Amino acid sequence: MTTAELVEQIHLKKSFLCIGLDTDLEKIPSHLLKEEDPLFAFNKAIIDATHHLCVAYKPNIAFYEVLGSKGWDVLEQTVNHIPKDVFTIADAKRGDIGNTALMYAKTFFETYSFDSVTVNPYMGYDSVEPYLRYDDKATIVLGLTSNKGSEDFQELRIDDKNLAETVSAKISSWNNKDNCMLVVGATNSEKISRIRSESDNMYFLVPGIGAQGGSLEDVIQYAGKNVIINSSRSIIYASSDSTFGNRAKEETIKLKDAINVLIEKHCS
Amino acid sequence: MTTAELVEQIHLKKSFLCIGLDTDLEKIPSHLLKEEDPLFAFNKAIIDATHHLCVAYKPNIAFYEVLGSKGWDVLEQTVNHIPKDVFTIADAKRGDIGNTALMYAKTFFETYSFDSVTVNPYMGYDSVEPYLRYDDKATIVLGLTSNKGSEDFQELRIDDKNLAETVSAKISSWNNKDNCMLVVGATNSEKISRIRSESDNMYFLVPGIGAQGGSLEDVIQYAGKNVIINSSRSIIYASSDSTFGNRAKEETIKLKDAINVLIEKHCS
Repeated sequence: MTTAELVEQIHLKKSFLCIGLDTDLEKIPSHLLKEEDPLFAFNKAIIDATHHLCVAYKPNIAFYEVLGSKGWDVLEQTVNHIPKDVFTIADAKRGDIGNTALMYAKTFFETYSFDSVTVNPYMGYDSVEPYLRYDDKATIVLGLTSNKGSEDFQELRIDDKNLAETVSAKISSWNNKDNCMLVVGATNSEKISRIRSESDNMYFLVPGIGAQGGSLEDVIQYAGKNVIINSSRSIIYASSDSTFGNRAKEETIKLKDAINVLIEKHCS
Repeated sequence: MTTAELVEQIHLKKSFLCIGLDTDLEKIPSHLLKEEDPLFAFNKAIIDATHHLCVAYKPNIAFYEVLGSKGWDVLEQTVNHIPKDVFTIADAKRGDIGNTALMYAKTFFETYSFDSVTVNPYMGYDSVEPYLRYDDKATIVLGLTSNKGSEDFQELRIDDKNLAETVSAKISSWNNKDNCMLVVGATNSEKISRIRSESDNMYFLVPGIGAQGGSLEDVIQYAGKNVIINSSRSIIYASSDSTFGNRAKEETIKLKDAINVLIEKHCS
């Protein structure tokens, strides 16, 4: 699925929501542990309950990688189970040069059939360009993250901008084929609006809502409607018993509606 | 193996050499393709021929990840085959926050038994700290890389330093337990000496010699003897026929000796 098709799905479904599949054996309902493959059983139930309400799923690759090769098998089953009208994001935050970056691009775009992958910008253009060669996929580059540590480097001043703003402006200049987005964590209004002013109308993937405490209203007021809002734990772990699929669906509806109210208020 | 034990091995073996196991099915000798597991057969032959001459092996994870779960099985077999007196580096360049960073640390330090892993600093302290909790392992953080794209962000000026120097100084301040190193690509003398002056006596892992064209003499003259010099392609692909193990050994000896001559010249 291309970025343009994702945008079409956002309009069709009236949803800006991405669900993070950060699936952890220690957090899934205990009755699933009897299943042959508890992690896939969990992901399948979440996807079946929510796919008509969200526009994207974002498995964080670390949660699968830690399990060794069987984790990658669960990841593959999960991506294959996601309906074709839902965008898939490999949250891998990879970053390496030329030939090696191309291997990572192949991993997520070909070996596994993800629609997009998150990428770290630190090594510069030749670490991002191999992903951008895939016209029909999306490359989602870290701009500003919402963690405490983002202050260490992303907020260093370079002339009149900080590093995250400088990076975002540069990434925006690389987006010639509309196949690139930015990760912009849910943080305060001023930071978000400064990144927006550096990045034209690029889509933002916004983590940090909910469990991480970012303000949904600030995001929508200052980033505008070209956003995909991610929520992981507050949806997928809404219940720890057999009702977890249904509870995930309820939380998804609640957040989807809350986003739509704010989009109506600030972006219409 | 700890960083201190690595340093002991450097003295014992009189070797500063790391061999990069960037093993690619399209580049290994074609007679190996008949083997049940050509990639492991290749890695095993390279390790058996060179382990007494080098102090570290560095598989770049992208080359294994692109093969899906069977690539991870090859990686596991490879790490397990490396003798315990040789330091192992997972060249993964991972970067993510808190809980997720801890999953990546577990992946490389526990699921696979690597002695160290390379990490991207862009997200700041809380993306590096989970690795540093492992006292008996080493965390190797990207400082300055040697690719063209490093100019995009790493050379941006922040007051009187550039970003790579600022990052290196910060990483050095986090190295309270001597379990941290820096990736410093082989580049020009001025850049290397500026990074050295920001990072006390921290060990540098230096890629970019040989195939990537960096000057070995510049590295040793300006970085000093606290270095591990990586070479990948010029050693492991020294021959494409059945003599590849022996040719890799010859190239290893040649580079090991060349480094020792320069260490003698500049650091004694």
